Amino acid sequence: MNSKGWEVYFSERDKQHNQLTGKKEPNGFGECPALVLIDIYYSVLGTNREPIFESMRTWPGSTGMEGWAAVDKTAELVKVARENGIPVIHVKGLQSGIKPWIHRKSRPSTLSEEQRLKGYEIVDEVKPVSGELVIEKSAPSAFQGTPLLFQLVSLGIDTVICCGETTSGCVRASVVDGATHRFRMGVVEECVFDRTEASHWMNLYDMNQKYADVVQLDAVKQYFNQVGKTVTI
Amino acid sequence: MNSKGWEVYFSERDKQHNQLTGKKEPNGFGECPALVLIDIYYSVLGTNREPIFESMRTWPGSTGMEGWAAVDKTAELVKVARENGIPVIHVKGLQSGIKPWIHRKSRPSTLSEEQRLKGYEIVDEVKPVSGELVIEKSAPSAFQGTPLLFQLVSLGIDTVICCGETTSGCVRASVVDGATHRFRMGVVEECVFDRTEASHWMNLYDMNQKYADVVQLDAVKQYFNQVGKTVTI
Amino acid sequence: MNSKGWEVYFSERDKQHNQLTGKKEPNGFGECPALVLIDIYYSVLGTNREPIFESMRTWPGSTGMEGWAAVDKTAELVKVARENGIPVIHVKGLQSGIKPWIHRKSRPSTLSEEQRLKGYEIVDEVKPVSGELVIEKSAPSAFQGTPLLFQLVSLGIDTVICCGETTSGCVRASVVDGATHRFRMGVVEECVFDRTEASHWMNLYDMNQKYADVVQLDAVKQYFNQVGKTVTI
Amino acid sequence: MNSKGWEVYFSERDKQHNQLTGKKEPNGFGECPALVLIDIYYSVLGTNREPIFESMRTWPGSTGMEGWAAVDKTAELVKVARENGIPVIHVKGLQSGIKPWIHRKSRPSTLSEEQRLKGYEIVDEVKPVSGELVIEKSAPSAFQGTPLLFQLVSLGIDTVICCGETTSGCVRASVVDGATHRFRMGVVEECVFDRTEASHWMNLYDMNQKYADVVQLDAVKQYFNQVGKTVTI
Repeated sequence: MNSKGWEVYFSERDKQHNQLTGKKEPNGFGECPALVLIDIYYSVLGTNREPIFESMRTWPGSTGMEGWAAVDKTAELVKVARENGIPVIHVKGLQSGIKPWIHRKSRPSTLSEEQRLKGYEIVDEVKPVSGELVIEKSAPSAFQGTPLLFQLVSLGIDTVICCGETTSGCVRASVVDGATHRFRMGVVEECVFDRTEASHWMNLYDMNQKYADVVQLDAVKQYFNQVGKTVTI
Repeated sequence: MNSKGWEVYFSERDKQHNQLTGKKEPNGFGECPALVLIDIYYSVLGTNREPIFESMRTWPGSTGMEGWAAVDKTAELVKVARENGIPVIHVKGLQSGIKPWIHRKSRPSTLSEEQRLKGYEIVDEVKPVSGELVIEKSAPSAFQGTPLLFQLVSLGIDTVICCGETTSGCVRASVVDGATHRFRMGVVEECVFDRTEASHWMNLYDMNQKYADVVQLDAVKQYFNQVGKTVTI
Repeated sequence: MNSKGWEVYFSERDKQHNQLTGKKEPNGFGECPALVLIDIYYSVLGTNREPIFESMRTWPGSTGMEGWAAVDKTAELVKVARENGIPVIHVKGLQSGIKPWIHRKSRPSTLSEEQRLKGYEIVDEVKPVSGELVIEKSAPSAFQGTPLLFQLVSLGIDTVICCGETTSGCVRASVVDGATHRFRMGVVEECVFDRTEASHWMNLYDMNQKYADVVQLDAVKQYFNQVGKTVTI
Repeated sequence: MNSKGWEVYFSERDKQHNQLTGKKEPNGFGECPALVLIDIYYSVLGTNREPIFESMRTWPGSTGMEGWAAVDKTAELVKVARENGIPVIHVKGLQSGIKPWIHRKSRPSTLSEEQRLKGYEIVDEVKPVSGELVIEKSAPSAFQGTPLLFQLVSLGIDTVICCGETTSGCVRASVVDGATHRFRMGVVEECVFDRTEASHWMNLYDMNQKYADVVQLDAVKQYFNQVGKTVTI
């Protein structure tokens, strides 16, 4: 099911509470999934595979080696999705004049224009192939201010499996919205990543408890192989 | 600003990362705030003020004494809002046949019908007065599937201050959506509460870092007193 | 298919244009429909069956005998939907403190409080039975600021058949939103009604041309009988 | 106010009904407007200024000379908006793999690839200048599946003035959504256009009656000149 890596953060009271009301079994997935990859571009990984604090010297938003590990696992899952005809949808930030979602003075970027453009590219390991949708968003959630919902309804999707980053940011926001819209949501434990370890784990706990099944990669591969045979999208 | 109670959850790496990119100063509030109270009803507090595990015997969703402490602080803030003509909007769960946002088999409720109805009432300490809007939702976020946004735009609101529960559930979801819609968001540290301590604190961290200013009660009272004079809603 | 009652409004140019690019065949419906009844309450029909201008003396929003004719036809369709296990969803205006969608000074209502309450009731002919969802809206569209979309996704609905009023108001707005969200939309010609004849017909034309199939009652009954056998909701 | 060009479509009953409940005075505009230009690209105008049926030989979606007349008037208004610091927002169709909003078999396009790209360009007369936002939509309404709402809230906009096409399609859908979200909506009579005359006029009537003020160009220029002095965006 999942590694329960969040338990180390629990107070005694949290442990006791979790025993009483914690989720006992997964909600389960449906028959028509889509795989949604959230914000997997160079600006959050860097162009070289380096530990986070080294990478951050060039790429301040980098997630370091943990990010790259998740990317490699995600590439495995993307392959299985494609083999089974399961739609892969890529989501990334919209580059435009839309005002940001927090009203703060933005610090001048330390990135060069060339870096900025490179940073905005989806990494080669999971980059879109012909026919795959790329959705640009200007909100944390992949659902807000985008046509993602339209596509899911049009395709008859009932289950959305999420990978990407950050666990506590755009992944969390997208998972809440997906559940809100009554899709069955899945989060692949090995395929989401964050800059803050405590946020990563507690958001996995929250999502698993309230909105989604946090599941391990092998289980999702198996699921895709199962439903893939019957998918006719 | 806030108590930074989340720091105890940080790993060494998290501490170092937070020093590099953690939020240094608040985003700031605007000139036309509304106060939004989220899900403050008896079912999450119980009808008696008891510690959480005692209260849960009757009210499985109870937040116990921590919840009641937040309610008392919220009552103070509601008073200041009303004195200053700042709109107070109450949000609670819709009782209807809408399917829940997770597709799981619901366990039969242990509440009697009388309890269920009582549980659905907003607690006396912060209950709506004549002219205050009560919005019923069927999603975690107060913004989804409700007319809350319509009201905020109609009133020219630019800032939304949130109280209620749970920090990691409906408060978090509402704060993300409010920021998404480009409102300046505030979370009152003493006025939000949760069933899980680690979730409470890490969600405060996430919200403060990404979407809102997490602020202390006194600062919000002062803010309401300041803008109240110029509010003409 | 439909009566094409809109053709009398066409200019010569419109006729020629319609011959070139007018819709030639229906888009078609799916396998999992819901029936949505929009704003069928006494305030738009009156409590007596009277011609529109007589009815308007008591009920300024009345649609008169044309409204009642549509209600009777709608009652027939509701019966067929129920027999086939097709979800019937009722939509009506929310009575609350939400600001109206136009910023005009509202004229004081000429209705008594008793009338106002009666006016807000769904008419007996199509009133909800146990287990049917009633959704309250504060926008023209049944989809905006309501959980309608959540319910449709949760039930796996792919087709939404609309009845009610007004053709040019809440029906039109709902049909545009349903199509926007990629549902297959149907409008039952005999079951929608309006206060303005030209608006009624031209909105039917627009909807049929752009967003929906405008179909006759018998065809929808037949459709419900067909898919009803396979619906397992 | 407006030309009331819709009155020729009224039946005797419509005339009588309009006298009783027709809109008597405008709702009025606010202090912070934005100008939104909807779908003004070559594919709906053609690259040459020709009458509609001639233009349609090359550009099947063309609106002909009426479209061009509206474009010229819109260019005048855009100039006044820019002079007064009023935000001009351009909206056009998103070119992507998003499924269309009606589930019909699409006919193979008669446009060459070169034409298709040209058709997708906003016409020179009103094309965006540096700093103006271009929003791409995949729904009739400029508000659905786009960040338009985020931008309006972020800028504190209270009034949205619409130009473009078609009156009965994307303009109408956007106006309904803008009103739904409690913006004060304006439609510039000379600056919206359609392929069907009856649809054009009856949609202007519907919008003016229910959701917006349909106003003439000179009045909007005057309005922009008035509020422009106080706009500080």
